[in-house]
Amino acid sequence: MNNDTICALATANGIGALGIIRVSGNDALPIVQKSFPGKKLEKQKSHTIHYGYFMDGEEAIDEVMLSIFLAPKSFTTENSVEIAFHGSPHIGKRILETLIKNGARMAKAGEFTLRAFINGRIDLSQAEAIADVIASENEASRKVAINQLKGGITNEISFLRTDLLNFVSLIELELDFAEEDVEFADRTALSGLLDKIEIKLNSLIESFQYGNAIKNGTAVAIIGKPNAGKSTLLNALLKEERAIVSNIAGTTRDTIEEVLHIKGNAFRLIDTAGLRDTVDEIEAIGVKKAKEKVENANILVYLADAATESFSEDIEMIQSLLREDLKLIICATKIDEVTPTKYENVEDIFRNAISHEFDFIKISAVENQNIQDLKNELSSYVEHLKTEESNVVITNQRHFEALRKSLDAVHQVKEAITFRISTELLAYELRNALEHLGTISGEVTNDEILGNIFSKFCIGK
Amino acid sequence: MNNDTICALATANGIGALGIIRVSGNDALPIVQKSFPGKKLEKQKSHTIHYGYFMDGEEAIDEVMLSIFLAPKSFTTENSVEIAFHGSPHIGKRILETLIKNGARMAKAGEFTLRAFINGRIDLSQAEAIADVIASENEASRKVAINQLKGGITNEISFLRTDLLNFVSLIELELDFAEEDVEFADRTALSGLLDKIEIKLNSLIESFQYGNAIKNGTAVAIIGKPNAGKSTLLNALLKEERAIVSNIAGTTRDTIEEVLHIKGNAFRLIDTAGLRDTVDEIEAIGVKKAKEKVENANILVYLADAATESFSEDIEMIQSLLREDLKLIICATKIDEVTPTKYENVEDIFRNAISHEFDFIKISAVENQNIQDLKNELSSYVEHLKTEESNVVITNQRHFEALRKSLDAVHQVKEAITFRISTELLAYELRNALEHLGTISGEVTNDEILGNIFSKFCIGK
Repeated sequence: MNNDTICALATANGIGALGIIRVSGNDALPIVQKSFPGKKLEKQKSHTIHYGYFMDGEEAIDEVMLSIFLAPKSFTTENSVEIAFHGSPHIGKRILETLIKNGARMAKAGEFTLRAFINGRIDLSQAEAIADVIASENEASRKVAINQLKGGITNEISFLRTDLLNFVSLIELELDFAEEDVEFADRTALSGLLDKIEIKLNSLIESFQYGNAIKNGTAVAIIGKPNAGKSTLLNALLKEERAIVSNIAGTTRDTIEEVLHIKGNAFRLIDTAGLRDTVDEIEAIGVKKAKEKVENANILVYLADAATESFSEDIEMIQSLLREDLKLIICATKIDEVTPTKYENVEDIFRNAISHEFDFIKISAVENQNIQDLKNELSSYVEHLKTEESNVVITNQRHFEALRKSLDAVHQVKEAITFRISTELLAYELRNALEHLGTISGEVTNDEILGNIFSKFCIGK
Repeated sequence: MNNDTICALATANGIGALGIIRVSGNDALPIVQKSFPGKKLEKQKSHTIHYGYFMDGEEAIDEVMLSIFLAPKSFTTENSVEIAFHGSPHIGKRILETLIKNGARMAKAGEFTLRAFINGRIDLSQAEAIADVIASENEASRKVAINQLKGGITNEISFLRTDLLNFVSLIELELDFAEEDVEFADRTALSGLLDKIEIKLNSLIESFQYGNAIKNGTAVAIIGKPNAGKSTLLNALLKEERAIVSNIAGTTRDTIEEVLHIKGNAFRLIDTAGLRDTVDEIEAIGVKKAKEKVENANILVYLADAATESFSEDIEMIQSLLREDLKLIICATKIDEVTPTKYENVEDIFRNAISHEFDFIKISAVENQNIQDLKNELSSYVEHLKTEESNVVITNQRHFEALRKSLDAVHQVKEAITFRISTELLAYELRNALEHLGTISGEVTNDEILGNIFSKFCIGK
C-alpha cells in the first residue's frame, strides 16, 4: 500500500476567515512537525487541536491550529493533520509549498477518499456518496447522498449478495461432484430467491429515473409563440428563486441555465439565458431550434395566448415536439383578457386536437395562484418518479449500469434453470450477477474503475 | 458584555471538500448539542474533536466533525464550536438554519474578532492585522500583517506610552500642588523623551508610504505614443505573471487592473484593461486622459520609439505629466531597429530636456534582459521606501492618522516647554498624545471606531 504523505487545500478556493489544508500519510506528523516547532506532535493524542505558528525555516508563515488524527482513527485511516490557517489563498499556497519542501506531495484529485476506500474505512458507493454530498445543491440530492454515505445502497444489495453467494457455493459443489449428478442447490428455492432479487433489482433500476431527476434536476423547456407571455412567466418563476438564493450568504452558482427549486427538487429551465429579452422566440429560433430544446427536456411547458383567434399553429407546434416520455403542460396565458367562455373553450380545443396526456393551466396577469399551480405540476412530475418499494434511490450511472448487468445475468440464470441448461452456465451467470453487484460497493473493482471515479473528485477530497 | 451565541460560515464561499461553521457564545455547547445527539458535549475537554451526525430534529443533515474550544481558551475567549461539514454550500446553509432554530443568531461582519478584542484576547491593531493577514495576496503584505498580528506595532508604541505616562503622572502631581510652584517632572528629561518619541513617531509615519505600497500595491502608469511598443511590453511583463498565478491551484483574482508581482511586491498597472488591443492609445485617450491615469500613479513608465525622428512630442507629454513625487522611467523601445549611436543619442536628448530625475532603459525585440531591468527599477522604487529605523511598518490609514495626531500633540508639548506655557496645557497635550497612541492598540476607543473597523471584516471572521 502506498502511504506516502499527501497534502492539499480542503476548503473552497477564495478568501475566507479560515482555510484548511489536509495532510495524510505515514510521515504526516514528522512533515508537519518540521514547520511547527512549538509542540512534540508525536506525543499528542488523536483528535486534539494545537495552537502555534507554521514556520518555513525561521520565518513565521501564519498563526495556525493543527488538528491531529492518528491512524486508524482518521478519514484515510492514516496519520493525518489538518492545518487551519487565516484564509488567504496566498498563505495557503505558502503552506503547501513548505509542506512539499518538508517531504509531502500534492494530492491527486480524490486521493484522500481513495485512500479511505483502499484502507477499508468506506466502500466504493460511500466514496462516491462523498462527492455527491459535496455537490448537493438542494434537499433532495443531499438526502439521497447522505443515505448513500450511510451505506444505504450497500445494505440493500448485501442481503442479496449473501443469499446468492450461498447458492453459488452449492452450485460449485455440484460441479465438483459433476459425475455423480447430484443437486445440492434446491432449484425451486433458487428460483424463489432469483424472483426476489429480480424484484429488488428492478425497483432499484426504476429508482434511477427519480435519482437522475434529483441529481441532475428535471429539464423543462418553455416554448410559445411570440408574445405568448413567456418573459412574464419566467420572471414570475425566477423572481422568488432569486430571493431564495440570496437568502443566506454563501450560495453562489455558475450556470448557463436558470435553475428553479421547488420543494427541494431542482428544475433546469433549458436555454433560457437571455430569452427574457427575446420576445419573438419561435420566429427567432424556428421550429428546428425549439425541437432541439425539447429533445433534452423532461417537461414541455407550452404557452398559448388565450386571446388568439386560432390555435392551429400552436397545436401543430406541440404535435411536432411531442415524445412518448415527455410530460406536457399547456398554459393558456392572458386569460384576464378574454371571457371565461372563451378560455374554457381553449382547453377543449387542445383536448380535442391532442391525444397525448397533458395538464392545462390558466395564467392571468394576477399570477400568484396560477404560478403555484404550475409549480405543483412540475413538482408532481418528480414525485411520481419516486418508487414505493425502496428507500434507496440510485443516482449514479455506474450503479445503474451494474444493476442492469446484474439483472441481465439473473435473467440468464432463470433461463438456465427453466431450460435445464448446464450447471456450468448456471454457475457462470450466478458469478456474473454477483460480480456486477460487487462492483457497486467496490468488493469487485479494478484500477480503471477507480481511476474513472476518483478523477472526477476535486483535489483536497 | 453581550455573550449571546453567534454562528457563521468561516471558510470561503463555494464548493470544497470541507466547510467550517463557527459557533461562539455562552450557549455554544447546548445549541450545537441539540443537533448532535451522539455525545455529551459539556463533558468533553477543550481542543478536542468529535465525530457524528449533525441533525435537524430526526433528520441527518451531514456527517460532521466538531472541534470544541472551551472558555477562555478559544479565539473569542467564549465557549466555541467549529463544525466541519462536507463543503456543499447547500449543507452549510442547512446547518446555519438549524443552529439559528436552536437559538444562535447569524454573526455580523467581524463579530468573532470583535469579541476576541472586547474580551481582551487581542488588541485592536491585532484585530485589524487578522483582516490584513486574510487579505494578504503577496509575501510583503503577509509578512507585515503577521508581524502586526504578533503585536509588532503595539510593542513599538507601548514603551513610549509607559514613559509618557510617567511624565503625565508627575505633571498632574504638579497641577495638584499648583500654588506651590514646584516641578516634579524634570523638563530636560521630558524634552529628551519627547525627542526620542518624535524620532520614533516620524519613523513610523514615514514607513506608511512603504506600508501603503505593500498593502495596496504600487500604481504604475504606462504611457507612450501609438506604436511605441506598449502592447509588447505589457505582454512580456504579464506573461510571466500569468504563469506564476496559475502555478498552484487555489489562487483566483477579480481585478479590473492587471497586477504584477516582483520580489513579493504588487504593482498595479493602471487601467490597462483592453489597452493591449488599442494600439493608438495617446490619440485615443488624449493628453487629458493620460494625465488622469498618471495622477493616480506612483511610477510613470514612458515608452519612446527610438527610431523616431523627433522626441519633442514625447518630451512635451512627459513634462505635462510630471509631479514632484512621481518616479519616472523612460524606456527607449525598438532599439534593435536603430544604430547604437542613435540610441545613445536618445538618452542624451531626454537628459538634456528633462530636469526631473529619471531612469533610462533600452528595450529591444530580444527583451528578456531589458524587461528584467525594468522590473528591477520598479522593485527598487518599493525597496527605497523602506525605512532603516524600524522593523515595524504602518500599513493602516487609521494608525497613520493616530500617529500624526500624536506627533502634533508632541510638537505642542515641546512648544509648551520651550515657551514655558502653562502646566495645564502641557498636561492636556501630553494626555492628547497618549490618547492618540492609545487608539492604535484600542486602549482608547469608542463604538464609532469599532464599528468602522469591524464592518469592513467579512462575516465569519
